[in-house]
Amino acid sequence: MDLKKYIYDVHNFPIEGVTFKDITPLLNDAQAFKYTVDQMVEYVKEKKANVIVAPEARGFLFASAVAYAANCRFVLVRKPGKLPREVKDVEYELEYGKGHIQIHVGDLKENDNVVIVDDVLATGGTMKAIVDLVQQEKANLNGIIFLADLSFLHDSELFKEFDSKSLLTY
Amino acid sequence: MDLKKYIYDVHNFPIEGVTFKDITPLLNDAQAFKYTVDQMVEYVKEKKANVIVAPEARGFLFASAVAYAANCRFVLVRKPGKLPREVKDVEYELEYGKGHIQIHVGDLKENDNVVIVDDVLATGGTMKAIVDLVQQEKANLNGIIFLADLSFLHDSELFKEFDSKSLLTY
Repeated sequence: MDLKKYIYDVHNFPIEGVTFKDITPLLNDAQAFKYTVDQMVEYVKEKKANVIVAPEARGFLFASAVAYAANCRFVLVRKPGKLPREVKDVEYELEYGKGHIQIHVGDLKENDNVVIVDDVLATGGTMKAIVDLVQQEKANLNGIIFLADLSFLHDSELFKEFDSKSLLTY
Repeated sequence: MDLKKYIYDVHNFPIEGVTFKDITPLLNDAQAFKYTVDQMVEYVKEKKANVIVAPEARGFLFASAVAYAANCRFVLVRKPGKLPREVKDVEYELEYGKGHIQIHVGDLKENDNVVIVDDVLATGGTMKAIVDLVQQEKANLNGIIFLADLSFLHDSELFKEFDSKSLLTY
């Protein structure tokens, strides 16, 4: 199935000069969505994961179905002010300034086998911060799966110390 | 299965005096999560829906798995600045000021049969706005399903003109 057919280029979004990959047409096609989730589930099973970790908001769009279908636990990474219990916080670089993301302390256990699920790999800044959170919580990072890799936006060696996969590459 | 065991009360979050229902323990238990999704899927099938509509970010946590398992299309309702193509926008009342939510024009078709999925029904302000978007797009609203209804926060007749269900009531 050619999933690229279901991902639209939207020019000058969110700002002038940027071309945004709009994945909503893929979600809005039941067969394309099922095919995508099933491919991710296959990877999760290969990696023998028992926990899916995903960042808000677009990571949730795939991670929920993947966790369900692979019979995994589902642990959230969110922006500050969203997770109500004690959190671990990681700061990361944005184009202008810094961002923060958080995970609940104790949601991951030592020796959990984690696959991180997200929609699009762009510069990789957020994903590096998520990897950091998973490692701080002493879980095993068995793999990272993306729907689409915008490979022109990052170094090809970005996640070379981990197992990672993208269903599509641009 | 007693799902309330997996929903924690967090006092004074996000502000002093409020008790927050933390659903993350439910997501972080594979059996409880599967049970929840399966209950929602049963409702979606009863209502003969072909499209799941859900708001960011917590609606996505269940809607993705429900859409996958019920073989439905998955249409997003998001905050301003997130959906890249032409949108329809609805304003709704917040405790202080106003909020806006949006749907892509054309994501829903006339005669689509929609079930809206969300985690918690509180005052219902956001859900009323989502209902409005679905109706503006001329889709049929076959039902609304929540994980949990905080019934002390709203009028019992709030959605009486629609079919709606909550797996849990507080």
